[in-house]
Amino acid sequence: MRIELTVFLKEKEKQILAFIEESEVQKYIQPKDLYDAVRAYIFRPAKRLRPAVLIMACGCLGGAEELAIPAAAGGELFHTWTLVHDDLIDNDDFRRGSPTVHRLMEEAGRTGFGLDESQAKEYGRHIAILSGDMQHAWAVNLFIDLAVKKKLDPLVVLKIISWLESYVIGSLLGGEALDVQLGISDITGGLDFSEDEVIKMLWLKTGVLYEFAGLAGAMIGKGTADFDDPEVKAVKEFTGLCGIAFQLQDDILGVLGDEKTLGKPVGSDIREGKKTTILYEALRNADENQRRTILQVLGDKNAGADEINRIIDLFKELNGVDYTKQLAAAYIKKALPCLDPIPASKYKDLLLQWADFMINRDF
Amino acid sequence: MRIELTVFLKEKEKQILAFIEESEVQKYIQPKDLYDAVRAYIFRPAKRLRPAVLIMACGCLGGAEELAIPAAAGGELFHTWTLVHDDLIDNDDFRRGSPTVHRLMEEAGRTGFGLDESQAKEYGRHIAILSGDMQHAWAVNLFIDLAVKKKLDPLVVLKIISWLESYVIGSLLGGEALDVQLGISDITGGLDFSEDEVIKMLWLKTGVLYEFAGLAGAMIGKGTADFDDPEVKAVKEFTGLCGIAFQLQDDILGVLGDEKTLGKPVGSDIREGKKTTILYEALRNADENQRRTILQVLGDKNAGADEINRIIDLFKELNGVDYTKQLAAAYIKKALPCLDPIPASKYKDLLLQWADFMINRDF
Repeated sequence: MRIELTVFLKEKEKQILAFIEESEVQKYIQPKDLYDAVRAYIFRPAKRLRPAVLIMACGCLGGAEELAIPAAAGGELFHTWTLVHDDLIDNDDFRRGSPTVHRLMEEAGRTGFGLDESQAKEYGRHIAILSGDMQHAWAVNLFIDLAVKKKLDPLVVLKIISWLESYVIGSLLGGEALDVQLGISDITGGLDFSEDEVIKMLWLKTGVLYEFAGLAGAMIGKGTADFDDPEVKAVKEFTGLCGIAFQLQDDILGVLGDEKTLGKPVGSDIREGKKTTILYEALRNADENQRRTILQVLGDKNAGADEINRIIDLFKELNGVDYTKQLAAAYIKKALPCLDPIPASKYKDLLLQWADFMINRDF
Repeated sequence: MRIELTVFLKEKEKQILAFIEESEVQKYIQPKDLYDAVRAYIFRPAKRLRPAVLIMACGCLGGAEELAIPAAAGGELFHTWTLVHDDLIDNDDFRRGSPTVHRLMEEAGRTGFGLDESQAKEYGRHIAILSGDMQHAWAVNLFIDLAVKKKLDPLVVLKIISWLESYVIGSLLGGEALDVQLGISDITGGLDFSEDEVIKMLWLKTGVLYEFAGLAGAMIGKGTADFDDPEVKAVKEFTGLCGIAFQLQDDILGVLGDEKTLGKPVGSDIREGKKTTILYEALRNADENQRRTILQVLGDKNAGADEINRIIDLFKELNGVDYTKQLAAAYIKKALPCLDPIPASKYKDLLLQWADFMINRDF
């Protein structure tokens, strides 16, 4: 990552977390366990790419960085609540290197109320549901701070929230619901999926939120309530396409990445049976034997290191990894000209550095 | 109920449901199961008191009824998503006379995907979580329609949403979390609770949302963004106090009410072990023997009709029911003078009829 981008990310993270820390909404959160649950993820180490992109998008259309902070904070918290509910649904144990919220609260139920195993699990799940609900509301409030604390035109703020709470959330929740259904079809049927379906899921679960970061930042920067403003559309398309490339690269790192740098075990995507373009392309090029080997290990939560390494080798050998790299690069190539109509600035330059980082990163 | 109030409720219900039906947000909801889950409760028979109160509050400060429809619809949908998550957490089977969302989706998992018992239960729970999340977002969008479709001052709209998404939701979710913890303390400890705690729960789980209906309606009616406007505060205090009386009466009906009129079995509150002022007062006046009888049946999901009837008789005999009736009447008596500064109008009259209905209703 270029040094300017690194510095920018660190500086904005500090400001965003400070803004969240100062938010008055927290005084309405009770009892203590719910309060702790609501704050669990947001301060854990993370890349903070989405909020940074939102601020760059604001800057590249002439808005002050400061103006976009509430939306950057709100977007980050919005992303966070979807993680809390997704982690619960997927029954994951860790997020950002520490226990997931439902696991944390399971522990709180055990130690705080002396609950037995099954009562504690239930307590953890219940508080996790309420926690995501509260974060969702808090995120909306942070967006409202755009008008209340930064004096942005209230109509612009309402339009941004309406996009988030209709198209964006419909996509995110639809993606998660389709994921749930896809998981079922693995249990009950074979492994039928198309590349289009994989790309659609990338879009629903990741692209849409990056697109929103571009849209919201651009609307704030320009002070417009018009979704169809050509500059807003240009920035939004750029960040959306880069968002798909981000997720494609994430899938590559999920196979090739280093455990220490990533914070999750090598091969976890394979053990989860995640549907990626890597898997799709590898299966397309596999002979009967190779196909059988892949499908045997895929989704096996107890697969050993040897088996995982065999699959990783097959993914490389059968062009799955290279194909996905090329696909990610193609999305970035398609994204770059979107910014042509935007005048040169420090922020445009940062957006271009960010686009480059999307496909040239190892964490 | 006086005929004017009945007519008003029916007419407003029709308009609110039509407004919800027309909302464009629905086109973003996928896949089909999630779409069905999101729409499950809202069109089922209900009294629609909260949205009606919001419209009366708007009217009594000079606003057109039509102006408040999006907020009335939004408030009703907001209430609905909390029901979906609460029903899931409480593991309830029925809502408004039909299966709860997680049970409906459990059935959809069985018939649509051929899932077995435990997979279907999980599917039902997962779609119910996502369904509440989507309804929450949709509700926010309906409030935004105040500005977009009815041209209300966007700052007024933002202020209303910010109150809803901080104080109101913090109270509702805090109430539900405390309920979860209270349920645990029943399992692990005795039955220690104070009357203050019962009243606090009434406030968190019901009063706050009625108070909000008054606040939002009044702000819309007057077109003000000022929470501290004296007329807004007057209406808000009135509806909040009546909301507590509403819930006290609900508790009485939960003990004495007729199964057919209420749509839930006689004694269900007793079988659930619900903490009410009825129970509190009865226990306060009980001798050792009576206390033991009550605690034996309370919270026993399989209690028979005879046992339930014995408890109901004790609740009456030990002054629990009368005490709660007097308490509800006292809240209404305290509420009425709040409206003194509000000029006479059809809507003020409807609000007074509604207050009377709060404590003189059998459904």
